[in-house]
Amino acid sequence: MSIYDFSIAIDAMGGDNSPDKVIEGLSFYLREDDRIFFNIFGDEDLIKKSISRFKIQNNLYKIFHCSTYIQDKDSVRNSIKIGKDTSMWRAIDSVKKNESGLIISSGNTGALLVISKLILKMIDEIDKPALAGLWPNHKGTSIVLDLGANIEFSEKNYIDFSRIGAELYNVLFKKEKPNVGLLNVGSEEIKGHEELKNAFNALNKLKTSFNFNGYLEGNQIKDGDFDVIVTDGFSGNISLKTAEGSVNFINKEIKKIFSSSIYGKLCYLFSYFIFKSIKKNLDPRKYNGGIFLGLNAPVIKSHGGADSLAFYYSVKLGVKILKGNLIEKIKKSLNND
Amino acid sequence: MSIYDFSIAIDAMGGDNSPDKVIEGLSFYLREDDRIFFNIFGDEDLIKKSISRFKIQNNLYKIFHCSTYIQDKDSVRNSIKIGKDTSMWRAIDSVKKNESGLIISSGNTGALLVISKLILKMIDEIDKPALAGLWPNHKGTSIVLDLGANIEFSEKNYIDFSRIGAELYNVLFKKEKPNVGLLNVGSEEIKGHEELKNAFNALNKLKTSFNFNGYLEGNQIKDGDFDVIVTDGFSGNISLKTAEGSVNFINKEIKKIFSSSIYGKLCYLFSYFIFKSIKKNLDPRKYNGGIFLGLNAPVIKSHGGADSLAFYYSVKLGVKILKGNLIEKIKKSLNND
Repeated sequence: MSIYDFSIAIDAMGGDNSPDKVIEGLSFYLREDDRIFFNIFGDEDLIKKSISRFKIQNNLYKIFHCSTYIQDKDSVRNSIKIGKDTSMWRAIDSVKKNESGLIISSGNTGALLVISKLILKMIDEIDKPALAGLWPNHKGTSIVLDLGANIEFSEKNYIDFSRIGAELYNVLFKKEKPNVGLLNVGSEEIKGHEELKNAFNALNKLKTSFNFNGYLEGNQIKDGDFDVIVTDGFSGNISLKTAEGSVNFINKEIKKIFSSSIYGKLCYLFSYFIFKSIKKNLDPRKYNGGIFLGLNAPVIKSHGGADSLAFYYSVKLGVKILKGNLIEKIKKSLNND
Repeated sequence: MSIYDFSIAIDAMGGDNSPDKVIEGLSFYLREDDRIFFNIFGDEDLIKKSISRFKIQNNLYKIFHCSTYIQDKDSVRNSIKIGKDTSMWRAIDSVKKNESGLIISSGNTGALLVISKLILKMIDEIDKPALAGLWPNHKGTSIVLDLGANIEFSEKNYIDFSRIGAELYNVLFKKEKPNVGLLNVGSEEIKGHEELKNAFNALNKLKTSFNFNGYLEGNQIKDGDFDVIVTDGFSGNISLKTAEGSVNFINKEIKKIFSSSIYGKLCYLFSYFIFKSIKKNLDPRKYNGGIFLGLNAPVIKSHGGADSLAFYYSVKLGVKILKGNLIEKIKKSLNND
């Protein structure tokens, strides 16, 4: 028996400032927990330099040198063509070979999704993968899916993703029967697509391992009454990006006014510690890490532009998912309901 | 020739605190401009009481007593059944009869849309109405449509709404060739529905009265590089509501931290005038008023929960639309392109 609880495959390339931010993120994590082993894929020289800089004990990782990597600008088609020698491909492959329990990458999202599907394959009962994200709300955190893995959506997808999302919530937040809702628009008479309405009716009748709480609207996402929010990938992606843009807008407007006068600047200085604590509370890095679900192993996408602390949070998320035995729970839930 | 520039039909009932907030809103407007005449529909007693309270000169309005009105909880079907005697129906009908140039209501959105369509009819070339809204951005204001009038969307709808939105922008902000974009999701390989892609290709080829700037993502809405943002009603409504929810979330989190300690409360007091000016800058009431477009006359929906100042802004919006001769411009644009 290994002295490690789990092994995680790390695609150290791709995204901004890789592999430095990746390795530093791992070093943050290993300070808290040295029972995780990392299989690190990428340019060996660069990775070694990073490791000597951020000081990781050499019994906690193994480097797999890869001659190339998929860049953000590469098309999915091209990524598959250059595939097999890239850090992303080989990292995913190590999960397939059971050498790692999951893979984390901050590289090209589209390539990660397609190559993961190609190598790891879908869980038998599920026909599409979902990209799930963690969103802060007034009461804690909710899980929102799909954030953009699929554009076209069927009734079955809504139902599958409700189940998958509920299992993920259960694993991350230890709630037996999470509240699940379908994202919809307001007024009764123009409510939802046919597929969405059919899913609503089906979920109302199904015996499920979660509480189906019906529809919610976009302005209710942050209330915290729904633990799991299910939507199609198009609307989910637009909702995600709109939230991001709105928060940036408010931040910039507030900054503009505080910095537009001497009185404002004084107020800012006076309230410095308050702003610091607001920034800490709302730090988006805590919620870094989208999870591709529906495959035979978890795949975590760290934000390409995120830094080392954000990467650390995505590692933490990965460990929770492995400890909670998510994939087995999803498979059981699909067979039981 | 009338001494008034325009007449506007006002549904004084429906929404919170009506008719008081409606009448007070009109009184705010008439302090600035007494060349607009209001045909006010609703409960005569209540309206008279409001008018004596908020003091409107009696040559600036006429009251049309209506025995009933459509409530927010009424279904669209029921609204049509009780229809003809309601304040909303008769206000819309006065536009049909050319007694008013447009109608403003803070009542039931679904009923307003359906009854307006029934009475005013669509412009010949357009098969669906859009709900357009004004959104603040870093550089000013953009117009976003459709915010929820339609769930199903065709290639033609995207193109029509681009034209309609561009004309509205031109009328409100005097820009000859506004920048128009289609809202889409990010990564290349999963980009958009077929209808959206077809619209993109068609708009790239069409000779239009606006600049077609291609796709944008949800996080770019607030940048201000796109004057007109076109999306399907489902995604548009979710984007609108998500933005609303996100802004509320940030506001509450900031308040929570400022009020959680004595130091925080002191900071708030010290910065009182800064917060006041932030609140003023970001006041959502300035952007009150969704516009149903594509009908033979403009229909303005004031937010049901909005107050008198918000209603004033929707009146101001209505007058701009009438002065700019929006409907004629839309018809011309549809025939010219």
